[in-house]
Amino acid sequence: MALYNKITIIGLGLIGSSIARGIKEKKIAKYLHAYEKNSVFVKTINDLSLVDVLATDLISAVEDADLIILATPVGAYENIGKIIGSHIKEGATLSDVGSIKAAVFGMLEPSLSEKVHFIPAHPVAGTEKSGPAAGFSSLFHDRWAIITPAKGTDTQALEKLTTFWEMLGSNVEIMNADHHDKVLAITSHVPHLIAYNIVGTARDLEEVTKSEVIKFSAGGFRDFTRIAASDPTMWRDVFLNNKEAVLEMLGRFSEDLTALQRAIRWEDGDALYDIFEKTRRIRKQIIDAGQEEDLENFGRSSDD
Amino acid sequence: MALYNKITIIGLGLIGSSIARGIKEKKIAKYLHAYEKNSVFVKTINDLSLVDVLATDLISAVEDADLIILATPVGAYENIGKIIGSHIKEGATLSDVGSIKAAVFGMLEPSLSEKVHFIPAHPVAGTEKSGPAAGFSSLFHDRWAIITPAKGTDTQALEKLTTFWEMLGSNVEIMNADHHDKVLAITSHVPHLIAYNIVGTARDLEEVTKSEVIKFSAGGFRDFTRIAASDPTMWRDVFLNNKEAVLEMLGRFSEDLTALQRAIRWEDGDALYDIFEKTRRIRKQIIDAGQEEDLENFGRSSDD
Repeated sequence: MALYNKITIIGLGLIGSSIARGIKEKKIAKYLHAYEKNSVFVKTINDLSLVDVLATDLISAVEDADLIILATPVGAYENIGKIIGSHIKEGATLSDVGSIKAAVFGMLEPSLSEKVHFIPAHPVAGTEKSGPAAGFSSLFHDRWAIITPAKGTDTQALEKLTTFWEMLGSNVEIMNADHHDKVLAITSHVPHLIAYNIVGTARDLEEVTKSEVIKFSAGGFRDFTRIAASDPTMWRDVFLNNKEAVLEMLGRFSEDLTALQRAIRWEDGDALYDIFEKTRRIRKQIIDAGQEEDLENFGRSSDD
Repeated sequence: MALYNKITIIGLGLIGSSIARGIKEKKIAKYLHAYEKNSVFVKTINDLSLVDVLATDLISAVEDADLIILATPVGAYENIGKIIGSHIKEGATLSDVGSIKAAVFGMLEPSLSEKVHFIPAHPVAGTEKSGPAAGFSSLFHDRWAIITPAKGTDTQALEKLTTFWEMLGSNVEIMNADHHDKVLAITSHVPHLIAYNIVGTARDLEEVTKSEVIKFSAGGFRDFTRIAASDPTMWRDVFLNNKEAVLEMLGRFSEDLTALQRAIRWEDGDALYDIFEKTRRIRKQIIDAGQEEDLENFGRSSDD
């Protein structure tokens, strides 16, 4: 028996389409419906037969659904909530996959009946590619799915959503939404921001040409361009909606960078060595925790 | 016929041992000698038979060598120069593989006779691993080797060194040493510095535990830990010896980061989108230039 009778995914980009593939593969829903507003994506979704029914409007998409997952940029949640809110059936679960969690309550709860279980979630997985053609069902394997229920959330609905993510291959962590936003600010949001920033700085130099930046990028820079190639709309919405935590972590990052800058200016080799030596161990722990493969240069072939 | 009769490599870490493997594979030298002061490395070098003769002192290592390559951290150059300077034969070429180039002239030239061709070089290649066991002969394939000759360098010696790097699989670029240091400051040195820095910031947080940082690192952070796992001695010496260019690029990086921080604080979504959208194209150009493979998530398997 399928875990849910009808699941509806709103937004079939990289994440939404990967969920759709996983649902099909593991037979998690009897019926898989979806809504996608981008007409280019619609064609891909139909060509790849990613869902049973691709609805032409949001309201018919969510009708009778037992689980609805928002997989659009978080900036679209409030409007979608206003449109679908009164059409979600009693007892259904509304969830999402957004990278920020505290702000989503305010975006959606005003539009929802008390009989709908709203349980936000965030799979910590992704690639720098976007769109439904870039998705794949194993994207969530051995990754963490963080669920951030409000106090008093229905236990059964939460358990079912936990099982849903486990069936997609994830490990589930239950966390408070505010704490989620702090953890992700340092493990994801600030790293993306500084990657975008260094790529931008390099682009704008006068003394070094862009073709030199590209030619000699193997010295380290190219690593940063990967995450700086991520979806711009998604990331704009992340920074607008996790402002406090990002600004706090960014403040600490800048303080630390100033200390490093000072050590360089005053040629304090011991201080530099000390910092460089300590950070080395963290990678080993990430590899040991199964969150990274131990391949030199990310396993890039040397003959690329 | 071999390109050089006797080549001596001083320092057989990741880079030195990769050069040794390439020399053997392509038969670039009739005799390959080396010197390595780390006794653990010495054992590995002998176990792997990486060179013909592993000398027990620097002076006998360089005797009669036609090409000597320094592949130690640049902080060791000056002392090595004082020891070997008067023992290098007339007409021989002394080169190196350091990541900084302007400062190496001052470190070595005072110890050298005018009859020695000193031609600095820098292969823009490497991994986050260190030591002779981590090397491999294809490390330089399709990477750039930058050669930074002083004015008036002997044309024949320069041509021979160019051929040497081409035989190891590299493309060669001739560049002025000062310009090299500026280019590498942005494509390599500052990226390494900010990677070390963000990993350090994450380690020192009180509100987010280290185990959370490790668990949820797949959101972007883990990419930074790769280059923050690079050899600390090498990188200390890079920052001490490319101070001016690094501080200049770091100043620009910080200015740009402040502008991004302001856009977040004032919730200027258009400014954020604009920056995030432009940086995306640079990755494509790096891939098109053959300096990166087009694999999502660096080709990490999803089932790691």
